[in-house]
Amino acid sequence: MEHNHSNNLKVKSIGIDTYRENIIYMRHDCHVCVAEGFTALTRVIVSCSGKEIIATLNVIHNSNLLEHGEAALSMEAMERLNVKEGDFIGVSHLPPVESLRSVRAKLYGQSLEPEAYQGIIRDITDSKYSNIELATFIAACSNDRLKTEEIISLTKAMIHSGQKLSWPGIVVDKHCVGGLPGNRTTPIVVSIIAAAGLTIPKTSSRAITSPAGTADTVETFTNVNLDLIAIRKVVEQEGGCMAWGGAVKLSPADDILISIERSLDLDSPAQLIASVLSKKAAAGSTHVVIDIPVGKSAKVRTMEEAVHLKDLMMSVAAAINMTLDVVFTDGQQPVGRGIGPALEALDIIAVLKGNKEAPIDLRDRSLKLAGRLLEMTGKTSSNGGYQMAFSILENGDAWKKFQAICEAQGRFSEPKMGEFKFDVTSSKGGVITRIDNRKLAKLAKLCGAPHAQGAGILFASPLYKKIIMGDLLFTLYAQSKGELEYAKEYFKLNSEAILQIV
Amino acid sequence: MEHNHSNNLKVKSIGIDTYRENIIYMRHDCHVCVAEGFTALTRVIVSCSGKEIIATLNVIHNSNLLEHGEAALSMEAMERLNVKEGDFIGVSHLPPVESLRSVRAKLYGQSLEPEAYQGIIRDITDSKYSNIELATFIAACSNDRLKTEEIISLTKAMIHSGQKLSWPGIVVDKHCVGGLPGNRTTPIVVSIIAAAGLTIPKTSSRAITSPAGTADTVETFTNVNLDLIAIRKVVEQEGGCMAWGGAVKLSPADDILISIERSLDLDSPAQLIASVLSKKAAAGSTHVVIDIPVGKSAKVRTMEEAVHLKDLMMSVAAAINMTLDVVFTDGQQPVGRGIGPALEALDIIAVLKGNKEAPIDLRDRSLKLAGRLLEMTGKTSSNGGYQMAFSILENGDAWKKFQAICEAQGRFSEPKMGEFKFDVTSSKGGVITRIDNRKLAKLAKLCGAPHAQGAGILFASPLYKKIIMGDLLFTLYAQSKGELEYAKEYFKLNSEAILQIV
Repeated sequence: MEHNHSNNLKVKSIGIDTYRENIIYMRHDCHVCVAEGFTALTRVIVSCSGKEIIATLNVIHNSNLLEHGEAALSMEAMERLNVKEGDFIGVSHLPPVESLRSVRAKLYGQSLEPEAYQGIIRDITDSKYSNIELATFIAACSNDRLKTEEIISLTKAMIHSGQKLSWPGIVVDKHCVGGLPGNRTTPIVVSIIAAAGLTIPKTSSRAITSPAGTADTVETFTNVNLDLIAIRKVVEQEGGCMAWGGAVKLSPADDILISIERSLDLDSPAQLIASVLSKKAAAGSTHVVIDIPVGKSAKVRTMEEAVHLKDLMMSVAAAINMTLDVVFTDGQQPVGRGIGPALEALDIIAVLKGNKEAPIDLRDRSLKLAGRLLEMTGKTSSNGGYQMAFSILENGDAWKKFQAICEAQGRFSEPKMGEFKFDVTSSKGGVITRIDNRKLAKLAKLCGAPHAQGAGILFASPLYKKIIMGDLLFTLYAQSKGELEYAKEYFKLNSEAILQIV
Repeated sequence: MEHNHSNNLKVKSIGIDTYRENIIYMRHDCHVCVAEGFTALTRVIVSCSGKEIIATLNVIHNSNLLEHGEAALSMEAMERLNVKEGDFIGVSHLPPVESLRSVRAKLYGQSLEPEAYQGIIRDITDSKYSNIELATFIAACSNDRLKTEEIISLTKAMIHSGQKLSWPGIVVDKHCVGGLPGNRTTPIVVSIIAAAGLTIPKTSSRAITSPAGTADTVETFTNVNLDLIAIRKVVEQEGGCMAWGGAVKLSPADDILISIERSLDLDSPAQLIASVLSKKAAAGSTHVVIDIPVGKSAKVRTMEEAVHLKDLMMSVAAAINMTLDVVFTDGQQPVGRGIGPALEALDIIAVLKGNKEAPIDLRDRSLKLAGRLLEMTGKTSSNGGYQMAFSILENGDAWKKFQAICEAQGRFSEPKMGEFKFDVTSSKGGVITRIDNRKLAKLAKLCGAPHAQGAGILFASPLYKKIIMGDLLFTLYAQSKGELEYAKEYFKLNSEAILQIV
């Protein structure tokens, strides 16, 4: 710092959640604001007991919210700085963030060296970038602006930005690029792979914009809040786990970048690859299979795009000593029948139990992915993976392993559908010609998913199905009558857009 | 909107200034948040009595700030929506902003058609872009990513985004690219040009990060808060004015983009040209001269850059039927002696009065710019501009015109320096070899500029001046003792960085 005044202010807790950006709220007539020349959006350093964070200033013009000598911080900023109401904080000017030079250089078309990516990712991890600056970095990396060597540098920088796990021997993992409602293969793949004797310490995310994340779905039948010690214990005992990734800080820069990418709806191959592969590498995975659904309303829309993405991924994986394979799957419609945490879990359990009514597409996708992993790790011949996975599922080993993992994680309980339901029937006959996955997901969210575990949609109208007037299209489930009504009304106003019957 | 629920919430005023971004604050357990699935950073439409704005959601987890059924808006959002405490607002999902497709296309390297720029600028003007999205657009336009035709499209879109003025006959204007402390030629140029019988309806901005904007300086000797009617009256009577531009909404999209560019410190020729020329065209100017200071600590660092910028500007000006010329000036050190509103005003008045101690560099720059305008408009031969401006200044016509304009704007009063002052003397002998314009500006701001009109620096140490130990380097002026002490301390700790004496 350039000077060392008594820029101390007392923290008041006002409970504002700004998602990831650190915001500090200060009075416009605050002595620190006036003396330092701070105005709205100034970037400042906030310090307390030797800890520092960078925050963006919002100025308060209302004396009710803050007294003289007080300042407030957004919730995440309080957590990051580890302060509570009544603590004293210092506020000072932010010296230039050096790595922003590299971001500008990239924007001006230059190729960056590995050290530049290390600097950028270090500063992002340390929360030194504002949302505006993060958006600029993402824009600078968009399209094909990064050479393969740069994607490798970015991936390596991300791997080293957080915690790293290590395991003895081969460690396998899977990942799906771009969400497809109901595409919840993870618990099935984990059960098959662990039953085959391989190590698969799987961590998954919760939903952010979708009606269910894998962690939300798994939580309907077992405990997912495992710390590193618990994960190690479960994996040592059973060979696999199905944990929520939030407790483990792998590739933290990626979490920050993802929040901005999502709001920009920007698909950048470089960021996508660095994001996925850095998380897997930091988790200690040696053999990884990537599922890329291809379809008009999926993230990857054409096979050309899919192949380009695969080629880049293979190059980066080779550079970080990871054995990788990519599987292309259909991305045109939901997978399985359930959309929502418990409804998706019931599909998974039906597949594992081998029930007759279990969704064939979910089982087939899971076997395909598990099969590739069995082949890649040498558990079977280069063509025998699907059959091996099939027999592990058929003979009940996967179901036994699934239950054992759940017990090791704390419990196995049956997922429960919401008690309020409504059958949506067709008002005309014809053939289903188009499904809007996005609107279907919204409908499930209006039912209450994912916060209401039993809420969502039981879908019964796959593409090209013949429909007679009065046929069941799907059933809505909710845990409250109000939410069910809300979803019904949305459907009434958007039925044609959600499902096209011609 | 897709549905029409009773998403009504009562507005509470909590006085948070987020600069330009619209923020809505809602309780995490608010029925609208829960029903609509809103989470922090969701972009929403806020409506009231037929008016709509788009805002970003911040979620409140503290029940003291908001009661059930209440929501709060950032100050500018309240103003834009024209609501006050107690009004009821509706909140609903934001449909996709269509023009963001064009931004993504631009980021992917495509050239955009004029319609695309119109769509982008219209949506920006309507506050439909978040700061993150604005940053992405700026990044997409950075470097030389826009072809000349695209810069023309962007400029035209900006011209039509706000109010437009029109005047009979020739209308002249000037603009300086990139601030240099003390480079306050505007009032001198306006006085000379109006005295020559030309029309120059000049509007200027207030300081945002500098110790004085032209409007702040002019305000120390006359009234600058003129609306369109007042501007017309003054200009009809005197041929020129010196008004603050804030009351006139010329190129409003530009104001929004500038706030983000500034915080990114991103120089994009395309944005710069569209910004400057759209403002001038919307103001009705037909003949414009641009001052580009060139120097290591100036915005334009090399002559090569300056020439490139000039060429692009000339092409765009031709396409919008504007007669333009560009003048390159020295950008290595402050202009004149004063830094701060009143101190700069005193330099201006000294030049206009023809005082012996008037700063030569400020006078010379003003004459150069006024001279080019006189030549461009055919008031004199292509080589006689400087001499003509010189004689208008020497014979007292400019000073008379200056006083008349001030009176027409409401008053002329003598600017006053701050009553607290401190002489900074050199602790060693040598030659001034480097001046850090940025740190000098900060020192002036610590003295209290621009909020304290009389605060700032009277500079006496131009580059290459020989200094003997004990010589006066500059004088600090302040309106409060505290601020003077603060500035002195900053200087003590940074003297070597501010002025290098070798």
